[in-house]
Amino acid sequence: MAKQKKAPRPKAQTPKGFRDYFGPEVTERAEMLNTIAGVYHQYGFDALESSGVETVEALGKFLPDVDRPNEGVFAWQDEDDSWMALRYDLTAPLARVYAQHRNDLPLPYRRYAMGPVWRNEKPGPGRYRQFYQCDADTVGAGSVAADAEICAMLADTLEKVGIPRGDYLIRVNNRKVLNGVLECMGLDDDSQRDAVLRTIDKFDKVGEAGVRELLGKGRLDASGAYIDGVGLSDEQAEPVVAFLTSGRLEAAETLANLRAAIGASKVGEEGVSELEQIAKLLAAQGYGPDRIIIDPSVVRGLGYYTGPVFEAELTFEILDEKGRKRQFGSVAGGGRYDDLVKRFTGQAVPATGVSIGVDRLLAALREKGRIGGSVEGPVVVTVMDRDRMGDYQAMVAELRQAGLRAEVYLGNPKNFGNQLKYADKRQSPVAVIEGGDEKDRGVVQIKDLILGAKLAEDASLEEWKDHPSQYEVPRDQLVAKVQEILDLHK
Amino acid sequence: MAKQKKAPRPKAQTPKGFRDYFGPEVTERAEMLNTIAGVYHQYGFDALESSGVETVEALGKFLPDVDRPNEGVFAWQDEDDSWMALRYDLTAPLARVYAQHRNDLPLPYRRYAMGPVWRNEKPGPGRYRQFYQCDADTVGAGSVAADAEICAMLADTLEKVGIPRGDYLIRVNNRKVLNGVLECMGLDDDSQRDAVLRTIDKFDKVGEAGVRELLGKGRLDASGAYIDGVGLSDEQAEPVVAFLTSGRLEAAETLANLRAAIGASKVGEEGVSELEQIAKLLAAQGYGPDRIIIDPSVVRGLGYYTGPVFEAELTFEILDEKGRKRQFGSVAGGGRYDDLVKRFTGQAVPATGVSIGVDRLLAALREKGRIGGSVEGPVVVTVMDRDRMGDYQAMVAELRQAGLRAEVYLGNPKNFGNQLKYADKRQSPVAVIEGGDEKDRGVVQIKDLILGAKLAEDASLEEWKDHPSQYEVPRDQLVAKVQEILDLHK
Repeated sequence: MAKQKKAPRPKAQTPKGFRDYFGPEVTERAEMLNTIAGVYHQYGFDALESSGVETVEALGKFLPDVDRPNEGVFAWQDEDDSWMALRYDLTAPLARVYAQHRNDLPLPYRRYAMGPVWRNEKPGPGRYRQFYQCDADTVGAGSVAADAEICAMLADTLEKVGIPRGDYLIRVNNRKVLNGVLECMGLDDDSQRDAVLRTIDKFDKVGEAGVRELLGKGRLDASGAYIDGVGLSDEQAEPVVAFLTSGRLEAAETLANLRAAIGASKVGEEGVSELEQIAKLLAAQGYGPDRIIIDPSVVRGLGYYTGPVFEAELTFEILDEKGRKRQFGSVAGGGRYDDLVKRFTGQAVPATGVSIGVDRLLAALREKGRIGGSVEGPVVVTVMDRDRMGDYQAMVAELRQAGLRAEVYLGNPKNFGNQLKYADKRQSPVAVIEGGDEKDRGVVQIKDLILGAKLAEDASLEEWKDHPSQYEVPRDQLVAKVQEILDLHK
Repeated sequence: MAKQKKAPRPKAQTPKGFRDYFGPEVTERAEMLNTIAGVYHQYGFDALESSGVETVEALGKFLPDVDRPNEGVFAWQDEDDSWMALRYDLTAPLARVYAQHRNDLPLPYRRYAMGPVWRNEKPGPGRYRQFYQCDADTVGAGSVAADAEICAMLADTLEKVGIPRGDYLIRVNNRKVLNGVLECMGLDDDSQRDAVLRTIDKFDKVGEAGVRELLGKGRLDASGAYIDGVGLSDEQAEPVVAFLTSGRLEAAETLANLRAAIGASKVGEEGVSELEQIAKLLAAQGYGPDRIIIDPSVVRGLGYYTGPVFEAELTFEILDEKGRKRQFGSVAGGGRYDDLVKRFTGQAVPATGVSIGVDRLLAALREKGRIGGSVEGPVVVTVMDRDRMGDYQAMVAELRQAGLRAEVYLGNPKNFGNQLKYADKRQSPVAVIEGGDEKDRGVVQIKDLILGAKLAEDASLEEWKDHPSQYEVPRDQLVAKVQEILDLHK
């Protein structure tokens, strides 16, 4: 008989840059987000889950003047030819939601949002095109009390999810202070200001000396490439460096340093005064510099935000891929941005907020041993006699009623070895066995798989004999014995 | 000065058919799904969160042979011209995931998944293009023990989320029994079989007499339209009607009726025997016909599934939009489907599973008063003196440390009336007031807003005087007094 021609089979793959999450990857994230939501709720923030799909018009990311837009978002046309796109963050949707529902929402409006966002970017190692964001923002509050509140809430959140006090630091800066510094330097030229801003952004990497070089004539890169400088004189560059290095443990000293760096700039004084208020408000609530600190060396986001800027860093050390010690680093950042909804309504509405790096924070909790310790595999009830499936299902029902995680083996029961291999794959702590003989005698066999694995690994024959990892108990003591073994391994 | 021409403002709107969810809508759903996940976990099911975006090839929903595909899914082209689409359910991704990761997954593989899916369909009232699904499936288990387990788990789930025993019924049918009935009727003609299947699908609506008419000559619709019948004689139609109406409270009686309806059909006998096993397995675990019942009148999904079919119905009565009593109806359904991954791998892998209608079940819980009772609004600390924001933030910090939900008013504090209006919009139970006078005397004013609202609604002047809704207490008794008022209203 001639072989039939078959249609080619589809590939079983996610699209490039997408991935799936299994078991604990899903539940650990869900638990962490649930804990965070609890803190946000206590602070009076309300949950918001906006649509995953927005009109391109509302996102404002690009104009649909090309056939297939691909500027950072995934977009397509609806039946009526209007363009829709997947949200690329949670802030743009907040702006749209607030503009759309502002008459029904309280003012100020505190909201938190958690969920996937999508980016049409080139995927790379550890860089996915779908990932979680977790944001909290206060819309419509111009006072820096709102910024201080966000910082306090961030500190509480980190501790609640399992980062101990002392292992994190929230650093606060202010864009207005930098504006004051630039003003006092007399940099009228916008392109020169932008060049200084871009240079400041490299402070984390190149340090004080590097920034001096980059503000001046230029700098020889680690790779050997020469980076052109902004072209300022050493004297001109000084206020920027003074600003970046003005941080001290005592807020009062930091603020005095900043006041010196901004000269007579009005916006600069406004910025310093805002930082002063934030420090005062936080001190009044008991958040000292061991948790939240005024630190002008925070440069991330300084180009985007318009007032206070904050960043949460984890200060404990980890080993990097080359085995060198380094600080864990940033897990959250945020700040104040004006005119959240002006695009929609014409009215300026200030907002301030924070975004937690969900994957970074999960990695940190794993690093601290807070999650990912042990997988809670189910108790597996094996099937010795396929006609007595009812008996086995009754056993798992009993185990579950006692609050235990339990399942019956549902594959082909013919090969008992396969059942134990299955239990192994499931990371089961205990297997239950009841053959015809056991049934007749009213007993069950209970195998301690954790102890069994340990013995198999490193026990001598004597130890093996002395530590049986399998027990025979009367059928009505099934639950008690399983519970006893599980308690032993806790 | 001439008015400047402005660019048109974008519309602040979700795309058609999409919506946002606020506050309790988000948290109530999250809590319900969390409870469900807990039950699934106990049954040994593992979480899976697959990518929201799939290749069109993997979804198999349409061929990308048109410029803008719109057959039910939202799709677009990637940079390399390959087509991607948003998932339209959680079963197609399960097939792809299982085919992709089958070497790493246990066999059988029990998994649950919860999340949004997207449908490119015409939106209508209550019909959205993004909505939640919540599925549990067992892949690779051919035994009906897997089906019985799903039914038991569904019963446990409904009770755990708050549907009391007696208010739901899980009904089980089997497609193979129907196949046996059709076989025994001697319907060889495929189109006639399909016509009978379509007719059966209307049993819920038209009842026994209606099905008889539709299987025969035809039927005058309620709207006056005449619907052509399948054209069977009364005698020929009899086995179908016998099948649909064979359900009795006692499984044994139902099974005997079914055996009579299938005659000598082998596949029919297989189906009846499967139902018999399911009933036996469930009885062994204590799930009687008060919770799960063999019921051949379940017709939904009978065209799609290949073996056992199940449906969970809520049996309590609600009033429909016209004020008539009716049963709440279906909240979950599922069944067995063969060849889950055959498209990808060429190997047949059986699967069985259930999908809970997330929005329907939430509506049912609201109906039963299990959720949506009272919104937990925050205690609002008002701002009487904007220079003392630190004092007010210290108050909310204290209240939060006591486990209460509390926030300080962050809007413009000039108009005190606005602050109380804000508290009202936030559904706050309590407002705290500390002006300069109170500060000097070391006291705070605490307003019971719930009692205040009640009095404002229906109290006489005397009652008003007798029941003050505002209390003055020493500052250090703030938390205790607020707690006392909240306890009173519980």
